[in-house]
Amino acid sequence: MNIFIIGTGNVAWSLIPALKESGHNIVGVYGRTAQNVTKIAENFRIAPVFELSKITPYADAYFILTADSGIMPMASALKTQKIVIHTSGTTDINVLKRYFKNCGVIYPIQTFSKSVKVDLKNTPLLVEYSDEITAQKILYIAHSLSQDVREMTSAQRRCLHLSAVFACNFTNHIIATSKMLMNENEVDFSLLEPLIKETIRKALTNDPVLCQSGPAVRRDTGILNLHLEMLNSHPTLKKIYSFVSDSIVEFSEKYKNGLDNIEQSNFQ
Amino acid sequence: MNIFIIGTGNVAWSLIPALKESGHNIVGVYGRTAQNVTKIAENFRIAPVFELSKITPYADAYFILTADSGIMPMASALKTQKIVIHTSGTTDINVLKRYFKNCGVIYPIQTFSKSVKVDLKNTPLLVEYSDEITAQKILYIAHSLSQDVREMTSAQRRCLHLSAVFACNFTNHIIATSKMLMNENEVDFSLLEPLIKETIRKALTNDPVLCQSGPAVRRDTGILNLHLEMLNSHPTLKKIYSFVSDSIVEFSEKYKNGLDNIEQSNFQ
Repeated sequence: MNIFIIGTGNVAWSLIPALKESGHNIVGVYGRTAQNVTKIAENFRIAPVFELSKITPYADAYFILTADSGIMPMASALKTQKIVIHTSGTTDINVLKRYFKNCGVIYPIQTFSKSVKVDLKNTPLLVEYSDEITAQKILYIAHSLSQDVREMTSAQRRCLHLSAVFACNFTNHIIATSKMLMNENEVDFSLLEPLIKETIRKALTNDPVLCQSGPAVRRDTGILNLHLEMLNSHPTLKKIYSFVSDSIVEFSEKYKNGLDNIEQSNFQ
Repeated sequence: MNIFIIGTGNVAWSLIPALKESGHNIVGVYGRTAQNVTKIAENFRIAPVFELSKITPYADAYFILTADSGIMPMASALKTQKIVIHTSGTTDINVLKRYFKNCGVIYPIQTFSKSVKVDLKNTPLLVEYSDEITAQKILYIAHSLSQDVREMTSAQRRCLHLSAVFACNFTNHIIATSKMLMNENEVDFSLLEPLIKETIRKALTNDPVLCQSGPAVRRDTGILNLHLEMLNSHPTLKKIYSFVSDSIVEFSEKYKNGLDNIEQSNFQ
């Protein structure tokens, strides 16, 4: 298919090569910042478009790959009768429906960066569409990109996005926090790597509520108070420690029946 | 060596077979609850000891594998001239020094459970000891259990334990949270698995502060407010969302100079 790309961020940098490898033809790329348009156009040898009015109305599909806040302004300005697609986890399909008869969403559950090549073939793509005729084309594009294509409503996708912020963004930050505390005390962070890997392996192969370990789930107030005191010079981390510990206790009480066989960790 | 075990919890269940496989002789196991002593003694075919006064004073080494709060009471009651070892991340070696001339710590950085066999050979062991003569014996035991033995002071070990609570216990809970939110909305949790694995891979091979992604580090207040609203029925999770987001912003400001090449995720 002939595809036009709007946006020059990390998603565009990952999606353009994936679309090209799947045999699609990228007919042009538009963005607000001329420098970024030139850079991405030269890199992938596609036609740069510097003015909104110069976007061809004759592509088969348009991908809007801006930040969420940019999707509605872009949709209201874009003139085309063809299919318009966004890739956002949170923005509703109705934002596109207001302006386009044929539209849809292809949301890749993945974290993108310019420097790291993403394996899109194994990335789940969540798909939504305005109507059955559009469905065929959107599913055709999605299946050309990934082996794992699923249909999902905007409401479910929004929930998945919130869950992904916890599972991905927050998990990364918690690891960053841990590394900072280790560095402050001149302890080698790599000592924690086997534990982190085992934690993730366990959490993904068991029910993470049932394999929760540590002082909070054991109600070990001596250790909890000592840890809070150790965090006195990091007030935000102290709040995180306190509320995550509260939440661990809440979860364990909620799922009490299943907790007879709760596992404990050694670090007490 | 002839080793006596005090405690019948998850650490005992993991350490006893590892000690036996390393060629040590377990001369007995003591615990406060007769039922637990019988169970572990029968399972590993070792002698059960039901009374404190019946603990032999002639073993080469004694492992106190109780919860932290149980270490001092046990140390004050145990009568022996031989080496006494605890395996806690947080309890200071001085708690043992008060009662024993020859003592030490062997802290495995790992999460233990009865049901899952732990690969102790690849688990870092943090070792501390009262004196150079004891050192030889403690290091001998530690090296027989693991390829990765390191010496560390009680203060550093305490810091590592706090960091491990973040990296292991909190990470597990964040994943549990994410799964609960998915279940509530009837979305298949396995959809997030590739993302979680990629997040951990990235965080351990790069600086996690530099590869932080998501709405908080982008200061995307529209999404942040929407997510907080979606968490209205989960007040503790709402606080966690809010403070972790604050902390992500604080970290990114602190490390601003390194953040020119910050990576962004697709879920905006």
